[in-house]
Amino acid sequence: MTMDTVFVELGARRYPIYIGQNLIENALNYLGPLDGQQIAVVTNPTVNKLYGERLRSALDGFAVDWFEMEDGEAHKNFQTYSQLMDFLMAARHNRTTCVLALGGGVVGDMAGFAAATFQRGVKFVQIPTTLLAQVDSSVGGKTAVNHPAGKNMIGAFYQPQSVLISTDVLQTLPAREYAAGLAEVVKYGMIEDPKLFDYMVEHVDAIKNQNADVLRHVIQRSCEIKAAVVAADEREGGVRAILNFGHTFGHAIENVTGYGTLLHGEAVAVGMLMATRFSQRLGRAPQNVFPKLRELLEAFGLPTRLPSGVTSAELLDAMGMDKKTVDGQIRFVLGREIGQVDLVSDYAFDALASTLDEFAGPTS
Amino acid sequence: MTMDTVFVELGARRYPIYIGQNLIENALNYLGPLDGQQIAVVTNPTVNKLYGERLRSALDGFAVDWFEMEDGEAHKNFQTYSQLMDFLMAARHNRTTCVLALGGGVVGDMAGFAAATFQRGVKFVQIPTTLLAQVDSSVGGKTAVNHPAGKNMIGAFYQPQSVLISTDVLQTLPAREYAAGLAEVVKYGMIEDPKLFDYMVEHVDAIKNQNADVLRHVIQRSCEIKAAVVAADEREGGVRAILNFGHTFGHAIENVTGYGTLLHGEAVAVGMLMATRFSQRLGRAPQNVFPKLRELLEAFGLPTRLPSGVTSAELLDAMGMDKKTVDGQIRFVLGREIGQVDLVSDYAFDALASTLDEFAGPTS
Repeated sequence: MTMDTVFVELGARRYPIYIGQNLIENALNYLGPLDGQQIAVVTNPTVNKLYGERLRSALDGFAVDWFEMEDGEAHKNFQTYSQLMDFLMAARHNRTTCVLALGGGVVGDMAGFAAATFQRGVKFVQIPTTLLAQVDSSVGGKTAVNHPAGKNMIGAFYQPQSVLISTDVLQTLPAREYAAGLAEVVKYGMIEDPKLFDYMVEHVDAIKNQNADVLRHVIQRSCEIKAAVVAADEREGGVRAILNFGHTFGHAIENVTGYGTLLHGEAVAVGMLMATRFSQRLGRAPQNVFPKLRELLEAFGLPTRLPSGVTSAELLDAMGMDKKTVDGQIRFVLGREIGQVDLVSDYAFDALASTLDEFAGPTS
Repeated sequence: MTMDTVFVELGARRYPIYIGQNLIENALNYLGPLDGQQIAVVTNPTVNKLYGERLRSALDGFAVDWFEMEDGEAHKNFQTYSQLMDFLMAARHNRTTCVLALGGGVVGDMAGFAAATFQRGVKFVQIPTTLLAQVDSSVGGKTAVNHPAGKNMIGAFYQPQSVLISTDVLQTLPAREYAAGLAEVVKYGMIEDPKLFDYMVEHVDAIKNQNADVLRHVIQRSCEIKAAVVAADEREGGVRAILNFGHTFGHAIENVTGYGTLLHGEAVAVGMLMATRFSQRLGRAPQNVFPKLRELLEAFGLPTRLPSGVTSAELLDAMGMDKKTVDGQIRFVLGREIGQVDLVSDYAFDALASTLDEFAGPTS
């Protein structure tokens, strides 16, 4: 079995990310040292139905308790967190227990925050089952739940002791979610690795068909890039900001269209195009970047335009800016060429406004 | 103004503990670097009435929001935590905010857990106002709230950026609470520092009268000892266990008598005596340790016997043991002489039973 291992270099909290096929049924080999015999699996009904049984048999010999949370971001809240804590107490878990997340980003965030705060922190293992979780949310130690007043407002930086990325599980992922995950892979190419970008261009069909070797390669490179950035800046003081390429526009788009209209990765796809055009208008990026990026995103079936009806004024407002803002106040991650980005907070407002107008209606 | 500074050596998270007089009115000098202008003070009505105004004027120029939680351990719960999070969100605090704990251990635990988990961690400063919090709970990064099924079951290890110990605030502390705090100071002498023990013996009256220099010295040594232990074992894997000297018996006593009958420090005082007698029965500690310890505890007005009615059987049960336990299963911290302890899990059950019988009624 071919497997790649990426290490996240965080000193005493260094941990491996295993990438291969059929890792769930062999989970015991990859959990890392466990102090006790108790494991709490956090999952949701959809994933449990698909992969619960495989994990159940892999964990034979352990006392495993299963916590099913409802599907979806709306349930990543304080109430579910509180229920999960009650569940762990009721099942008499202690400081030697291991919390195991089996699911996408929502499950990973919830399980991670529970692991971070149950008895001041217990072991934590991630088995991400969406491409987005595999290349993004399961790497870097961000855990959180939502507050009614804002997403991810309550949480902790807490690193797992290992991450098991079993690429075969992506076969059951809806095509639209798979494509949305690919947007983040494209992002890694755009911010750090022109070779990864070119590799994706050359392997569009293999990626779409989930060829095992090709898929393992792009996931492994994505994790490597994110791991290196996280190792350099665990708590988001500096360079980690480059991971937000496409996200300033992307979040504004999600905000204006309402969360759920576009998937996060879809909004990021459009956001990356907007950032690239903005950069080009500032004379930073050459003209050939935009069409290359658009072509690749289109090849994966990702959106390259805003949903109709979105206006420049709404987007500006969502970014906390308005027409009176003469100079830039918020910082953008802008590309120079494929594989190279900078943090830019000094820019002509006109270039931003023109970019918005190009993608949406004019600022009214 | 004479001031001592003890550093807790935790690498990048190294932080100072300042010990002196009138530090509250000069708080601005000791907060450490603040990124933003927002501060959230967590306190309770009693402390707020006594010291709120001093801190309020010290923080002139900052946008300070005050969160008053009810007095007492019973309110260190999930509900108060949730209210505190709502409060921080409603007052629009962000990642650059600083949470400042003004109060005893309950306030410190609550504020610390909030700081650890608000937006994945914000700055945190402790101003402990009880002797117990000054020498124990404010040092070491333990933060937590209680779960209905157990104390401190939800929490995090999270270090403050500084601790301000203003010894003058102890003048308003009830005498019984002050004495209970001294029990923990005696503990530091017992586990690590015969000189500190002798110093306390020689300065009983000055300590009772809260002589500023003497008080500063014993607090400084206590913090130094705890800081060194914490630096060697932040997350309680090993040596940090020695801080539990007197606590295995102490917790059992609190458990049997009901929390609130004895103050924690009072239970620890009796627990240290029981541990010393147990050690003596095992032939580990010389006979002269017990009377020396008892004399010092008595001088501070601390209890040296169990409340009447407590039985050996109840204590054993509270420690999770019973008469059928032939050999030791739980680990005790036992003294060899004043200033030296070991972790002991191999001992004759008879010696434990005799110790319990000596302090309580016979095992029935």
